[in-house]
Amino acid sequence: MTRLTRFSVSPLSDMTRRLADVASSRAEPDLVITGARALSTYSERMLDNRELWIAGGRIAAMKPAGSYKGAAKRYDAKGGIIAPGLVDPHLHIESSMVTACAYAEAALLNGTTTIFCDSHEIGNVMDVAGVEAMLEDARQAPLSIFLTVPSTVPATSPEMETAGGDLTPEKIAAIFDNWPEAMALGEKMDFVPVAMSDERSHAIIAESLKRGRPVSGHVYGRDFVAAYAAAGVTDTHEAIDREIANDLLEAGVWIFLRGGPPTTPWHSLPEAIKAITELGASHKRVAVCTDDRDADDLLLFGQDWVTRQAVKAGMTREQAWAMGSLHGATRFGIGDEVGGLGGGRRADIVLLDDELKPVNTWYGGELVVEDRKVTPLLDDALSSPYRYPEAAYHTVKLPEQVKLTPELPTEKVIAHCIRTELPGITLVHDRIELEPANDWQTHFERHNLCFVTVVERHGKSAGNVAHGLLSNFSLKKGAIASSVGHDSHNIIVAGTDEADMQVALRALEKTQGGVCVVDDGKVTAMVELPISGLLSDKRIHAVADEVKALKVEWEKAGCTIPYMGFNLIPLSVIPDIRITDKGLVLVPEMEIEALFEPA
Amino acid sequence: MTRLTRFSVSPLSDMTRRLADVASSRAEPDLVITGARALSTYSERMLDNRELWIAGGRIAAMKPAGSYKGAAKRYDAKGGIIAPGLVDPHLHIESSMVTACAYAEAALLNGTTTIFCDSHEIGNVMDVAGVEAMLEDARQAPLSIFLTVPSTVPATSPEMETAGGDLTPEKIAAIFDNWPEAMALGEKMDFVPVAMSDERSHAIIAESLKRGRPVSGHVYGRDFVAAYAAAGVTDTHEAIDREIANDLLEAGVWIFLRGGPPTTPWHSLPEAIKAITELGASHKRVAVCTDDRDADDLLLFGQDWVTRQAVKAGMTREQAWAMGSLHGATRFGIGDEVGGLGGGRRADIVLLDDELKPVNTWYGGELVVEDRKVTPLLDDALSSPYRYPEAAYHTVKLPEQVKLTPELPTEKVIAHCIRTELPGITLVHDRIELEPANDWQTHFERHNLCFVTVVERHGKSAGNVAHGLLSNFSLKKGAIASSVGHDSHNIIVAGTDEADMQVALRALEKTQGGVCVVDDGKVTAMVELPISGLLSDKRIHAVADEVKALKVEWEKAGCTIPYMGFNLIPLSVIPDIRITDKGLVLVPEMEIEALFEPA
Repeated sequence: MTRLTRFSVSPLSDMTRRLADVASSRAEPDLVITGARALSTYSERMLDNRELWIAGGRIAAMKPAGSYKGAAKRYDAKGGIIAPGLVDPHLHIESSMVTACAYAEAALLNGTTTIFCDSHEIGNVMDVAGVEAMLEDARQAPLSIFLTVPSTVPATSPEMETAGGDLTPEKIAAIFDNWPEAMALGEKMDFVPVAMSDERSHAIIAESLKRGRPVSGHVYGRDFVAAYAAAGVTDTHEAIDREIANDLLEAGVWIFLRGGPPTTPWHSLPEAIKAITELGASHKRVAVCTDDRDADDLLLFGQDWVTRQAVKAGMTREQAWAMGSLHGATRFGIGDEVGGLGGGRRADIVLLDDELKPVNTWYGGELVVEDRKVTPLLDDALSSPYRYPEAAYHTVKLPEQVKLTPELPTEKVIAHCIRTELPGITLVHDRIELEPANDWQTHFERHNLCFVTVVERHGKSAGNVAHGLLSNFSLKKGAIASSVGHDSHNIIVAGTDEADMQVALRALEKTQGGVCVVDDGKVTAMVELPISGLLSDKRIHAVADEVKALKVEWEKAGCTIPYMGFNLIPLSVIPDIRITDKGLVLVPEMEIEALFEPA
Repeated sequence: MTRLTRFSVSPLSDMTRRLADVASSRAEPDLVITGARALSTYSERMLDNRELWIAGGRIAAMKPAGSYKGAAKRYDAKGGIIAPGLVDPHLHIESSMVTACAYAEAALLNGTTTIFCDSHEIGNVMDVAGVEAMLEDARQAPLSIFLTVPSTVPATSPEMETAGGDLTPEKIAAIFDNWPEAMALGEKMDFVPVAMSDERSHAIIAESLKRGRPVSGHVYGRDFVAAYAAAGVTDTHEAIDREIANDLLEAGVWIFLRGGPPTTPWHSLPEAIKAITELGASHKRVAVCTDDRDADDLLLFGQDWVTRQAVKAGMTREQAWAMGSLHGATRFGIGDEVGGLGGGRRADIVLLDDELKPVNTWYGGELVVEDRKVTPLLDDALSSPYRYPEAAYHTVKLPEQVKLTPELPTEKVIAHCIRTELPGITLVHDRIELEPANDWQTHFERHNLCFVTVVERHGKSAGNVAHGLLSNFSLKKGAIASSVGHDSHNIIVAGTDEADMQVALRALEKTQGGVCVVDDGKVTAMVELPISGLLSDKRIHAVADEVKALKVEWEKAGCTIPYMGFNLIPLSVIPDIRITDKGLVLVPEMEIEALFEPA
């Protein structure tokens, strides 16, 4: 067979006669998975003693176990649970710093067979070309990957930062028209402008609605819910507690409960699900999703883990699995194709143990994971992944000379510093009085400071560099740097001396992207991200190992917030103070502030 | 304003900024419905003390009652229940023998604001032209009317009957491509050929699936479920008991529970709903529908009545109303537009009493029914309905001379008679030995027989006429005739003497269609159906009155099955014996049988 992709299974319209023949025992299936309990996402019951007849990568029929008497290949489920593959309705592949092909491996190991990704990171770097390259990548992956079109690129405006992308309503319209995978508009993150009836924001929404495509959302604050829903948004994954979850449901918005590693601030499922478990709302318009995952966390905290968290929170196994599969599919209009074990559906099937842990995964009827391990068939598909266009490997364009540290003040000044605090999302605006000193080290020791610098890397400015100071970050020596600085993904460097910061910057220039730790002039850890400065070109386990090693060095360096939080320092839509290539940005004032003012 | 239609409300893509303004109190709504309990079809709960802000015919927001302080028009719901208008996912307008515009009046009185109709009757008479004329009619109606494209026209083949229409895969494809209202393929009634992988049947299914449109079904018999689902069918309204309902749900098929007047055989809801109430299936993929209604029954047994039957069967009011509205909308992919009281939705709203009886209906924000009566606004819209094209008024094309009765046998013969039995769906093949007699009256009295004759009326044959005998129909004198003889809608006449049968036939020729009763040479009751011989051009109450009068005369004439059953006598897909213009048809053998054979 040719390499396994989504297109290995023919459209149902070409296959109905064969499937009817198999279901009626006039033709042979390719495979019978027998001796199973079947988890029905339709009726939300467990059905005893079943078997699935599979032909051409689709389910021809579910029958009582033992019905099949022919010679086709049988797989004995030995009493395990068969269920539809999971459908993740909202995530960003770039968060895992891997390609779509590499992401597929982790997804299939987690029992996930369909995902809806919003590629707004690569859109911020490479504009439409980046989104389209990832779509090509997705088409060649052994996974069903659909796009929710990035809706909010850039996150702010050219006055506040220099981005690589600018997805106008016209460009978004063209993506919808050119790519059948473009199933919805991606999370409309600028919820304040949306609620305020901003013209461009609504023009983008209109391009989706005009085409009968739904609009995904991202909203905080109960006060915004009514206007946001009125603007045509019909899902969100940002419901952080039961009250806003409840408000959103009643406003007609589907809820994607987000589960994240419990050490992160992203694990909102346990609170938001209380709209069901405590307030008695129906769960029929509720799904679960992963949103963002480090490469290493992706293997441990996938959509299957999130689904099990719903069980932990009080749902039945059958309800939870439906929320992890069918409900997301229904929300995006593909509930006749995936999300259940009905006739005609893709044979995207998982074999589960009693705790809903995936043991096997069949993708389009092909066994791709067996006993929690990748099969040779899948290994083969993963071994020759899509190669991104050459331009994607050349996106870190730096000036030849960059000064990465500010001049030492000679008089007493007030420094506008950025204080990091766990969990690392909001940043506090510290006004610190600096008495004149002989060197920066004196200031750093007195006030627990270090440098933070953003260097424009899209080749769009005359070498923009902005200098700032981090307080409470506790980096004691060396430097760290990242080309993943949300959302414009300029280079962000922190350090205690210019030399190590230069080493870190040039290390990223050499790899054309990554996250690294430098000590004493040497790179001690590096996740190489040569594709648009965001993605590795390695397989998931290799990247996960690099990330683990990075985390070790990161902690050794003393950094008080994790690297995902560090990457958010330039995200100029979250209070109180951020730094972009244009300088310090005060939020929500959206004003540029100088680093120093006279004391 | 211009006349009220579905298009009176602008697409959401044009209105999001205004709605966000209204929801945020930056602009005024047009109307506030306040002081209500709100039935949430999303969460399936009753919400106390709410109000709806409406602008441009859409819901801008639901707020706590009393929130609105401005000067816009208020409607005090006085503690009643507000709920989304009902969505009927499967019905045939022609069954009510009225136009789409006339149907709208009854629907709105019943709290129904969106319907999915399958116009296969007019398709059987007038082919694509009939379907398209009804679509134009639908566009001009004050109701949201979508089409499930007739999929099985003719019901059998030219060998078995002469039909007016022949909807090939190509013609069906063109309807999908030309009419955005074509949302799905209509009920694929030929479920045996579908299960048998018949080429034309599957080619028709493929045209729908290729376009991402779902396929509606019609299936009897648990043995057919697997193959039928494998063929891509994803809903049915023919689940008649809990076992087949359960099988279909597990095969991934949405269930539309059909409610019908309890005196008819169509009221399958109470049995099929037991898949939920007794077998514990989730109701999330279950809706309710009306399917077929006489004009007079439509006013009494609408979608609201069916919804209340679901309550009677054990569902909560909120679950039942969701099954009557949101679930059908979700199944057809318009759950973001109708079926709930969420922001941005059409303001299709009903005010209910505590028994879920509709008191008021707002269609696109306009009050069309108040205190169970049509408002002047609606009356105006109904007073100048769509006029069908002239050809639609000339579809009864009869030979100048027709002999309506068979020759009296001169020797002893076996007559192949059609025995009618309540409820009037299946017909029994009676082989009756006729000893020679002097006249037909002698035979009729001896064996309780009468004539039944089918006359081809599409002008497609050389005047095809087929003669038969009905047993147990108990028509004692006079004649009855109908131009609604499923599915080819040739003229069917029953009677005891040629003269009255001729009067009945020519009465229908004069009106170009209808159902009539004749006694002693005079028409004693007539429902005139001049549009394609199927539809009246009058308003619903006038037609309902005609139907009531017809039923009185029908019973007086002695007929043992109702006229809807009589109209099924030519439907050559139901056992055991039918009569078409080609002669007696044995089912399922699909063979033509002579009326007499030597004894």
